[in-house]
Formats: sequence, structure tokens, C-alpha cells
Amino acid sequence: MAKDSDTPKSEIKKLKKKLRKLRGKLKDLRKETSAKPAPQVSPLAPTEFPELPPLAGVQFSALAAGVKYQGRKDVMLAKLDAGSTVAGVFTRSATRSANVLDCEAKIGIDSSEGAAIIVNSGNSNAFTGSAGDGSVAAICEAVASATGLPAERVFTSSTGVIGVRLPHDRITSKVQDLVDTLSPDGIMGAAEAIMTTDTFAKLSTTEVDLDGTKVRINGIAKGSGMIAPDMATMLVYIFTDAAVDREPLQAMLSRLTDATFNSITVDGDTSTSDTLLMAATGQSGATPITSLDDPHAAAFEAGLRTVMMDLAHLVVKDGEGATKFFEVSVTGAADDADARLVAMATANSPLVKTAIAGEDPNWGRIVMAIGKSGAKADRDEITIRFGDILVAEKGWVAQSYTEEAGAAYMKQPELVINVDLGLGDGAAKAWSCDFTKRYIEINADYRS
Amino acid sequence: MAKDSDTPKSEIKKLKKKLRKLRGKLKDLRKETSAKPAPQVSPLAPTEFPELPPLAGVQFSALAAGVKYQGRKDVMLAKLDAGSTVAGVFTRSATRSANVLDCEAKIGIDSSEGAAIIVNSGNSNAFTGSAGDGSVAAICEAVASATGLPAERVFTSSTGVIGVRLPHDRITSKVQDLVDTLSPDGIMGAAEAIMTTDTFAKLSTTEVDLDGTKVRINGIAKGSGMIAPDMATMLVYIFTDAAVDREPLQAMLSRLTDATFNSITVDGDTSTSDTLLMAATGQSGATPITSLDDPHAAAFEAGLRTVMMDLAHLVVKDGEGATKFFEVSVTGAADDADARLVAMATANSPLVKTAIAGEDPNWGRIVMAIGKSGAKADRDEITIRFGDILVAEKGWVAQSYTEEAGAAYMKQPELVINVDLGLGDGAAKAWSCDFTKRYIEINADYRS
Repeated sequence: MAKDSDTPKSEIKKLKKKLRKLRGKLKDLRKETSAKPAPQVSPLAPTEFPELPPLAGVQFSALAAGVKYQGRKDVMLAKLDAGSTVAGVFTRSATRSANVLDCEAKIGIDSSEGAAIIVNSGNSNAFTGSAGDGSVAAICEAVASATGLPAERVFTSSTGVIGVRLPHDRITSKVQDLVDTLSPDGIMGAAEAIMTTDTFAKLSTTEVDLDGTKVRINGIAKGSGMIAPDMATMLVYIFTDAAVDREPLQAMLSRLTDATFNSITVDGDTSTSDTLLMAATGQSGATPITSLDDPHAAAFEAGLRTVMMDLAHLVVKDGEGATKFFEVSVTGAADDADARLVAMATANSPLVKTAIAGEDPNWGRIVMAIGKSGAKADRDEITIRFGDILVAEKGWVAQSYTEEAGAAYMKQPELVINVDLGLGDGAAKAWSCDFTKRYIEINADYRS
Repeated sequence: MAKDSDTPKSEIKKLKKKLRKLRGKLKDLRKETSAKPAPQVSPLAPTEFPELPPLAGVQFSALAAGVKYQGRKDVMLAKLDAGSTVAGVFTRSATRSANVLDCEAKIGIDSSEGAAIIVNSGNSNAFTGSAGDGSVAAICEAVASATGLPAERVFTSSTGVIGVRLPHDRITSKVQDLVDTLSPDGIMGAAEAIMTTDTFAKLSTTEVDLDGTKVRINGIAKGSGMIAPDMATMLVYIFTDAAVDREPLQAMLSRLTDATFNSITVDGDTSTSDTLLMAATGQSGATPITSLDDPHAAAFEAGLRTVMMDLAHLVVKDGEGATKFFEVSVTGAADDADARLVAMATANSPLVKTAIAGEDPNWGRIVMAIGKSGAKADRDEITIRFGDILVAEKGWVAQSYTEEAGAAYMKQPELVINVDLGLGDGAAKAWSCDFTKRYIEINADYRS
């Protein structure tokens, strides 16, 4: 406030001075923090969502049950016709959730009856003691009763905060609504209902020609934090109208998991709820696949791999705070296991991930990650490339390499780091995202 | 600028409006980023540095050689009298630096001659091909020539950026100056010269009474990023005037490393240059320790443990961007190895570390870390405490636990997370710091 003694002129002078000072402060603060508004959607999100055509034999519904938040879809139901087969891969965490334990107990059983998958977000039902087991049983009973399926054919997943009792009544009271609104077109709503800190829904689809008969594979996934490879990662549901017996379906799913979902990482942390469920309805009319040696098994597996890889990459692209997506491709390792050690150590390294966030071609940190991985490596045999740019070879920076070329490469949103260890034929790939301040923001505030 | 048509009053009004607007913007921006000026010194730094009294038989010097930056001390020399023994522990990284390889080759040799340790910061001389080996040889020759020691008794370390040729001429041209300025009181300067992104010098000292004769142990350390347990971590130099034969000295150093430097982590990344060197001058007059079974060996080892633990904790307290220091104390594991798995998985988890940064008592993430650790665990046997506060037991949150108590506890700068697995007698501790935006800032910009 101006004092009474101030003349207008001196007041103007004072105010201008204050303005200058404030503007300076504002400028400094902006510079210091380079604050940009938090993105609503990951900058790596795909520009358009694929259309997922309906599959004969499976229907979806989703609605808002208010498990944790109000006014957003948080429960989905998938119902599979009789004759469907179901396979699954689950987290190996020693503290896995009641839902995962229940799914594991049910997954290895052949059944000609249908099946249902019900998933909620907002609460993981993990580390909730015997109450957690009770919640799973109550949800399975409710779905069984509303669908006429046996409870043994109802699979559940829960994702969200750990250690808070799941208010399962909010879910069971909506089960009839879920059943009443089932629709072959409902998969997009289901993909939305399973999101937590995800910024976009993750969908993938492919068509496979099995000797003249077309079958389709549709998949949805969620996950953006607590993502690291340990058996299955995050929540993934894949559906096909192909006819595939349970055993070959399980075998394909398990072996494809290593090179897809088990080769991605956001933060090296492993959820207690990671679940990958797959169902085959068999209603396409294509010849059933009864074993891995069947003539069409390879074609189907290739299609399944496409969908799994696609979903795995989408999960990384929605990594918490991610602004860059990168692949680590390792060749020349003593064996595949060593190649995987190097790929994962590099993809998980906070120093590599922060360098990528800073668009800094700091290849020395890749050398560090190779060194700490535990894999056999010889400094003088290592070759490192950023995309096609030769960076280091023979134990040192390449003569042709320029910092300018490296820096220009790092400005791209999607990067490939190639490491050749020069020792053998071992190869592996891993995918990860950069490590930004936004990750810290999201995870320092998630629960409170 | 005021327009000519403006009256003083309307100008005042406009200026005040602008001021209000700017103030609002400033407030919003501050809120959005909760920007505080980057601390010059870690908030966890000790409030005073210990006095390190001189030790008979060892002298220090340090100066600015301009290895990377101008005008700051970046080279230190320690010279040990004839009769000193030297022991060491080094990184197991497969891409360890030329200096580490050279030290490893020299460390296991008994010698009655003196020794020298020369260390530079600003450049790690790692992944610099055969030029790196040449740099080490040149530095060792220069020190040997200026001190009269054989080159085999000169130990070198380099810390800083990886993959850039070490301009060793800048160091060798200063060696005579270093030798000329050696002083028994020079250890503080030495501790400063080895700093890179460290915000304070790390020193520790203790006195041990060996049956009436006092011996002293002095130590210095550097390290604040690329810190994770793998043999020795970071750079540590410890000196004593006790007389300890090389073999028991090496044995003590190696076995104490596991519970000290190998039990701390800042980011899970392992440097290519990690080095721990220890020298005993034997000039205290105390009875020499010739084997681990000697009557004074246990007392000396206890003193050494104190200094090593102290330095290890100081390294974590200067972790890049750290605002909290935490201990993970695991008991009740099936065995010690399992306890260590849980302690390190928790101490390394980005989700645990960001929760601590956010002062969020998110104990579910500790359950997650236990689960992913690979250790044997039974959900219903796990007990978790924050300090003395019982948080979870019997597979669920404890009845007595309140979120308020947990949140109040998390506000402290130093925290203890107690995990009892309820399975056996295995126990282990690990120490870590929180994971903040400042870590990202430091590491996204370190090199460029």
C-alpha cells in the first residue's frame, strides 16, 4: 500500500521497481525449474487407437463402482462362452496378491464350461491378510451366481494401492449390472477401467491367416509404474477366436512372455499383482490347434507375439513420467543369458535413464551398465552404437564419433542403443523409458 | 511504459494490477514446482567435521592440476613410509578402469619399501583403451621418480567422467609440487581433492587402545552417485599407525566391506573405478598384529569397522539429491543371504525411495520390495515397523497403526525401516537415501 506521504510519481517509481523485481524472480524461477505443465497424456502415446473388432465368443462390460475414485470406470468384466480355453502367467513375487494366488490355483484346469474375468482398479487387494482371500471369494461367488458359471471359472485381478482392505461390496453390488451390459464391442471400456496412473488405454490387435481361415487376436493392458520383469508384468488380457487347446496356449504364452513383457522395465520394481490372462474362444471356425507341433501353431504364435510385443511397448511408452522410449539391443554375448543381463542392466540403470532424459549421449554410463551387469565382457571387444552411429569400439570412443552426432541422435523420442560384446552369439533386447522429474512427482505423491 | 494519455492514478492502477497478476503467477509457479533453491550442501551433512590428528608414517598433499575444472583441488598424494603395509578392495565391474586393474595387480605383494597413493578427480580414465594403461604407467613413473619409490608401490585412482582420455600430463607435471608440499596435516585437503559431485568432504577417525598403546585410524571417502554395492564402492582411503601385516589387514578389510560399503546404495549403479585402499604405517609402537588370531586383532578390527561404517553412511548422506537417510534392518529371514536380498531390494527400490522423498508412509511398497527380492517370505509372517511404530503384521496392517503416526515418523531426516520375516535367524542391514527430483537434475546434466 502507498503511504499517505507518497506522491503519485514516487509511488509509480516504487511500483515499477517492485514489478521489475518480481519479473526477475519469475524469470529465475522458470529457468531454475524449467517448469512445464505436467502432460495429461504421455508424449509417447500412439496418435490413434486401433479398432478392435468383436470376437465371437467373448463379451465385455465396464462401469464405475467407486472402488477408490468416484466417477471413473474401475471395474471390467469379460465373459467367455463355453468351449473357451484359458491360460495365464503370473508374478513370482513372494508377496503376491490374493487374486493372483486364486488365479494360479484355477489356471491349470481343463474345462468345457465358459469363463469370466473380472478386474478392478483403485485397490490391489494385496497384503490384506485373510480379508483379501475373502474378497476374492465374494467376487467370484457374485460373478458365478450372475452368470451361471462355476466359481472355479471366474478369474479376478485387482490393481491399485497395496495393503488397504478391498471394499468388495462396491464390486459385488455391480456384478449384475456388468452382466446385463455385456457386449461384443465393449473391449475399449474394459481397457479404460483397468487404468491406474496410465495416461492412455493400451490396445493391440492382429489378424492371422490359418490356412485360409482368419483368426483374430485382441489384447488390452495396463501398467505404468512398478513395472519390471518377473514372469508376467502388469495386467494384460488377450483374447482370440482361434481354437487352441489349453496346453499349447499356455506353452506359447509362457515362452513369449520372456521376450516381451519380461524384457521391459520402467523402474525395476515388480508388482504383487502382475497377471497375464489369455482366452481362446475357438469360434472362428479355424482348425483347432491341439499341440505346438500343429501345422498352424507357428503362424498363430507369431501373431500372438506381435500383440504381446505391441502391448509391452505401449506399457513402456506410458511409463510414469516417460518422455523417451529406448531399446537396448545386445549381440555378441557369450550366451543369451549374458545378453539379457546386459540388456536389462542398461535398461534399468538410473544413470542411463537420466542421461536419456537429459538428451545427453553419455555412453560412458552404458559402459558402466555393461560392467555391473555380471555378464562376461572384455573392454576391448565392446562396440556401442546409437542407432547406426558408431560410438565406441576397441575399448575406446570411435575415431569417427562426434559429440554433435550423438547429441543430435538423443533428441529423438525413440532411441536404439546397440551393444555388441564381441564374444559369441548371445543376443537379447530390452525396452525402457527415460527417468524424469515427473516420475518422482508421481511417486512421491501417489497415495497421500 | 506508461502511455502519454495515462494519468498518474490510472497508471498506478494498471501497475498494481500487473503486480497482482505477477504475484499470482509467481505463487502458482512456486506451488506447482515447490521449487526450492538447490542446496549447496546436502541437508544430511554432518554439522561439524572431525579433527583428524596426524598419523606417524603418512603425509598428504593436494593441489589443483586442472584435470577437468579450473581452480579447484583435483589431485591428492599420500606418501607412506617404509615398513607400511597396504591392502585393497576393488570393484568387480567387468569394465573396470585401467587404474583399478593396475592396483589389483600390485596389491597382493609384500614389500618393506614405502608406498604412495595418487588420486585425481574430474576424469575416471575408464574405457580409454590402451591410452588409459599408458596414463596409469606415466603417473606411476612420475611419482616413483619424484619419491624414489619403485613404480610397483605407487597406487592410482581416477574418478569422474568415463571414456575421455585422461590428460595425465597435467598430473605428472604437478607431481614434484605434490611431493614438495607433503605434510602430516594434509588429509583434509586430500579429502577435498577427490570430490566430484560430492557436496561435503567425508572424514572419519577413531582411536583404539591396543593393551595400553593407542593407535589411530583415519579415513576419507568420496562418492555420491553411481553408488551400489559390488565389492568396494566409491573411493575410500584409510590410514592407521597400527602395525598390521598385509594378510590380516587384507582379510579384515575384505570381510568388513560386505557389512559397510557393500550395504549402501544411492542408485544401484556401480562405478568402474570403485577402490578402497588401506595402509598401516606401524609407527604407533603398538605390538604388531600378525594374524587374525592375535590378541589385539579383534579390538583393531572393531575400530576399523567404526571408521568404515561411518564413511559408508557419510557417502549415502551425500547421495545425489538426498534429503533423507534411511536404514533397512531385516531380521527373521531364512538366512543372512535372504536378509541381505530383502534389505538391498528395499534400499534400492525407486518406489520406496520416492515414497520416502514424499514423506509418504507407503508401507505397501515395502511389501512389494520384499516380494520381488527373491528371498523366501510368507505374507502372513511378515512384520514391518517404522522405527518403533508397528505398521503391519500377520499379512495385514496392524490394528494399532494409524496413518498419522506413520506420516509423522516420515518427516524425520533419518529413518529406520524394520522388517521381520518371521522365518529364521537371518539378519542384514542396508542404508540408502531418498530419490528426489534433484537426483534427476544432477544426472541429466552431469556431462553436458
